[in-house]
Amino acid sequence: MMRTRPLKVALLGCGVVGSEVTRIMTTHADDLTQRIGAPVELVGIAVRRPDRVREGVPQELITTDATALVKRGDIDVVIEVIGGIEPARSLITTAFEHGASVVSANKALLAQDGAALHAAAERHGVDLYYEAAVAGAIPLVRPLRESLAGDRVNRVLGIVNGTTNFILDKMDSSGAGYSEALDEATALGYAEADPTADVEGFDAAAKAAILAGIAFHTRVRLDDVHREGMTEVTAADFASAKQMGCTIKLLAICERAADGRSVSARVHPAMIPLTHPLASVREAYNAVFIEADAAGQLMFYGPGAGGAPTASAVLGDLVAVCRNKVAEATGPGESAYTRLPVSAMGEVVTRYHISLDVADKPGVLAQVATVFAEHGVSIDTVRQQGKDGEASLVVVTHRASDAALSSTVEALRKLDTVRDVASIMRVEGE
Amino acid sequence: MMRTRPLKVALLGCGVVGSEVTRIMTTHADDLTQRIGAPVELVGIAVRRPDRVREGVPQELITTDATALVKRGDIDVVIEVIGGIEPARSLITTAFEHGASVVSANKALLAQDGAALHAAAERHGVDLYYEAAVAGAIPLVRPLRESLAGDRVNRVLGIVNGTTNFILDKMDSSGAGYSEALDEATALGYAEADPTADVEGFDAAAKAAILAGIAFHTRVRLDDVHREGMTEVTAADFASAKQMGCTIKLLAICERAADGRSVSARVHPAMIPLTHPLASVREAYNAVFIEADAAGQLMFYGPGAGGAPTASAVLGDLVAVCRNKVAEATGPGESAYTRLPVSAMGEVVTRYHISLDVADKPGVLAQVATVFAEHGVSIDTVRQQGKDGEASLVVVTHRASDAALSSTVEALRKLDTVRDVASIMRVEGE
Repeated sequence: MMRTRPLKVALLGCGVVGSEVTRIMTTHADDLTQRIGAPVELVGIAVRRPDRVREGVPQELITTDATALVKRGDIDVVIEVIGGIEPARSLITTAFEHGASVVSANKALLAQDGAALHAAAERHGVDLYYEAAVAGAIPLVRPLRESLAGDRVNRVLGIVNGTTNFILDKMDSSGAGYSEALDEATALGYAEADPTADVEGFDAAAKAAILAGIAFHTRVRLDDVHREGMTEVTAADFASAKQMGCTIKLLAICERAADGRSVSARVHPAMIPLTHPLASVREAYNAVFIEADAAGQLMFYGPGAGGAPTASAVLGDLVAVCRNKVAEATGPGESAYTRLPVSAMGEVVTRYHISLDVADKPGVLAQVATVFAEHGVSIDTVRQQGKDGEASLVVVTHRASDAALSSTVEALRKLDTVRDVASIMRVEGE
Repeated sequence: MMRTRPLKVALLGCGVVGSEVTRIMTTHADDLTQRIGAPVELVGIAVRRPDRVREGVPQELITTDATALVKRGDIDVVIEVIGGIEPARSLITTAFEHGASVVSANKALLAQDGAALHAAAERHGVDLYYEAAVAGAIPLVRPLRESLAGDRVNRVLGIVNGTTNFILDKMDSSGAGYSEALDEATALGYAEADPTADVEGFDAAAKAAILAGIAFHTRVRLDDVHREGMTEVTAADFASAKQMGCTIKLLAICERAADGRSVSARVHPAMIPLTHPLASVREAYNAVFIEADAAGQLMFYGPGAGGAPTASAVLGDLVAVCRNKVAEATGPGESAYTRLPVSAMGEVVTRYHISLDVADKPGVLAQVATVFAEHGVSIDTVRQQGKDGEASLVVVTHRASDAALSSTVEALRKLDTVRDVASIMRVEGE
């Protein structure tokens, strides 16, 4: 059964992930050969800085001409771990045109141009695999695309960014504020010098777009994902969460609407009960809950980033894509046949936790409750606390649309007795 | 791209799982067509009792002649949810001979005859998929076979039997004894009238054999799995576990030896720390930890049994196998190239919790400690408690081989001062 002509692999990018991919391909070459049914050979590594020392990476494979590498014509598989939109997109497209399948870890590109890339792969009869683009080593793309292919997924709810989970976990356990926790994350290498992509939720939003598209067999682009970062979460928010038996996580949430006619995808900080399995996800770990009609609730947990875990996902895809090459077949392509529209955030339904600073006088609660009622937002609990002529009012609502909640808050701000809407946070994971 | 000739599917068995498979194939026919790239048609359902009322199952498809059904010659895929060794094995083999791929949920058969069945499937150029055989809806077979195909798995540690987890969870939370908790499980439908297969660990052992084979790319049969049931776990064991900050779970443990030259697979009750994620798996849920070189620690959690969750796994496999049929290809077959031998239990290394009833007099601890030292078993902690001239001694060891521990216990029993070795339990999940 074993064929002897080796499959030729080109690697684009040789940073933390690329170096680890190279190391494993070298040290586990015999295992990969057995599992694929053919030897696999790394024939070129394109980098920007060829002089950088990369331990264990054969210097003779290094090139700075990525385009020439993917145009060689004899490459079976291109592994793309450069990240970002360009030149990654052009290189992947060129690889397809030259008959190569592609394994990519590029969430930003997949979230923005996934449909076009899938179409190009199909046109050229090659594969595009990207398990490593979402939640590092945790198998999510394959379970959603294949294991749950006979089921109907209704919800994906997860912690898909390790940096922000590390920061929020620190804030929760130590009572630290955001900047203090961010400093610690940076010092320990969990946050980048410019943490914007993580803390503003861009990274999680790209993953949410990819997951929603696969889960609901439709197209969801990065622009379709409602995104709120976690830079404004305060120690006071954590104190409020604790009083409710909750903690705060930055969640990616993809949902099928109750009527099944639309989907939504969003990233924002949210309170979740301490009894929810996602609440106990510590440090930089990731975890994703999937709810499906027949399967019920599944959870997947593991390291969401890092060189070795990401390389594990890349190599799993490499084996699959190489097996397909040997079999002269391709794996499942894009499945976007439902064409379900993506709802605007206003239509999304969830629960809310609202802290108000109000005047400490009779009738305030009645006034506030009336505003909620007038906007069709039903109150679950209210907690009132007085302090020096002022009082705080904490309202937790039943499920209501984001639009109804927004107009409620607008009306609350206009009340003389409401000094400030101190915080609004969604409550998830019932 | 869509082909119009439908793929023909035969279903063997129409109990809880089979009925649910039928229901989903009927109600989600359009989705399945889209996801497979061809319509899929259920053309026959073989049952033993044709007169039984099965809601939503088309009576005209029912037959009692399973052999004739798989011999029709026009069947593309056979779904086997009968369970047990015969007639399932003969039917599957006959299906292969007639060109059908098989989706099976049959853990007992796979654990006993997996190698022969895989060989038969390969000989006939068809697929054998069995995600539903292990842990119901939780994707485990596919992640191990495919997602981690480029990694090296070192350990699989899991709760893979819902019935026993329900019983142990009850004992833990209510302080109930084994038979009381079993009665509750039976009343609620979590345990069968004859619970032997579950409580004696046969079911978990079959799953351990399957998981170990896939994880380590070798062959592990049911007979290779060391198996201890959980019928002797007592309320006193739970009390001891609590004192150590632990709980007790029936675990399936598949390990690669430290030198990489052998593997082991075992099922037995064990103490695990409350801080370990498996400790918080409640009721009949399943969860499996996988440790791999590059991926690190992954966990998969979900419903491990039941009609709908098992049907979800069956249908995921059905879609995959049908896609392969459409592409005229097959998926990954058995990967057993490492041919790693399976160690006997005596060579397995772990930690132990031993309760001894001893005479309450000076020098006993020294005597006991000497016996451990003589057998090369290093003690981690000892707790001594006096009661009316007798005392109890609880010893927790460092890692030692099962053989060393057994000879230690044998020698302890011979000491005059040791009245009884009240319990021995392994400690896992550091």
